[in-house]
Amino acid sequence: MTPAFEDLLKILKPLPGLGSRSAEKIALHLLVERPERMQRLIHSLQTAGEQIQRCHACGNLAEQELCGICSDESRNRQSICVVEQVPDLVAFERSGTYRGLYHVLHGKLSPVNGIGPEDLNFDLLQNRAQTDTTTEIILALSNDIEGEATCHYIQQTVLANAGVTVSRIGFGIPSGSGVTYADPVTLRSALDARTDYS
Amino acid sequence: MTPAFEDLLKILKPLPGLGSRSAEKIALHLLVERPERMQRLIHSLQTAGEQIQRCHACGNLAEQELCGICSDESRNRQSICVVEQVPDLVAFERSGTYRGLYHVLHGKLSPVNGIGPEDLNFDLLQNRAQTDTTTEIILALSNDIEGEATCHYIQQTVLANAGVTVSRIGFGIPSGSGVTYADPVTLRSALDARTDYS
Repeated sequence: MTPAFEDLLKILKPLPGLGSRSAEKIALHLLVERPERMQRLIHSLQTAGEQIQRCHACGNLAEQELCGICSDESRNRQSICVVEQVPDLVAFERSGTYRGLYHVLHGKLSPVNGIGPEDLNFDLLQNRAQTDTTTEIILALSNDIEGEATCHYIQQTVLANAGVTVSRIGFGIPSGSGVTYADPVTLRSALDARTDYS
Repeated sequence: MTPAFEDLLKILKPLPGLGSRSAEKIALHLLVERPERMQRLIHSLQTAGEQIQRCHACGNLAEQELCGICSDESRNRQSICVVEQVPDLVAFERSGTYRGLYHVLHGKLSPVNGIGPEDLNFDLLQNRAQTDTTTEIILALSNDIEGEATCHYIQQTVLANAGVTVSRIGFGIPSGSGVTYADPVTLRSALDARTDYS
């Protein structure tokens, strides 16, 4: 089509969940079908990019110094759930199963990708763990080697002298699923996590 | 999450092909995972919105007065393919089956939605049909009542005195498909479009 159109496609296409066809649909939608949405989208992206920063306490998205969760007085402040990424926190919040605080590491240890302890949000976690209010840290990292290594490092180094209970979330067969289609790592996790049923 | 985040979600969600989950993924991708893409996206949307206009001849997307197709001297200028929307033109171009010019109506007649002849790009079509170069008009409108009504109006009114050949694209069972799963309208089109096979 036109150079500006092609350029827009090139930028839309690699966004998560999009491909050539959906990028083209969105571009034509904004340019031809609903041009009034174009300015609103630009303005909203700009505002989000300018306003949203990291929560100074936990690393979540925030528009003030503290995010909505850290500044919510009704949350249980004794418990901190450590997650890799903001989307993990969003998943927990969507599930409605957890009412404590979070701590977002913004990654996991990965020597292959050059991500070491200095790249992750460990210092703040150490500080928070040592306050009087915190009594429990729940590690909700991935069920893979890097998640395992990160949990090990947190337990051995970051929280070594924190005097808090540290746990790791359970792994196994997900809800609604069975053994037939589970991958080997899940099956191993499920076996390791077996509980007494007698 | 935050107000700016929620606002961005509200604007991303209704874009074609997106929903709650994919809007959230894209927002987090731009804010957390790949913030360097945010500015490029904003800039590209702005440029596209400013640069791209309607081709003064055919109504296609253009950055100059004429679109890339109308200004391409190698195209067959005797034939004009009339389509409803720019995406229809893109579909023809992607198929590589047509080398003539186009004319984009930007809709079809639809009394229910309050779309009458004055809302569609008919005047320019009339002018173009009356030039000496144009000998054939192909109507590539939808296989539905509104498409039918629009074709009828074009043939009876817009092109009444144009002295050009007018045809409508064929309808029937699409490539790779069979009768079993075809809907009633398609089957009727296919029956109506039957050709001698003896």
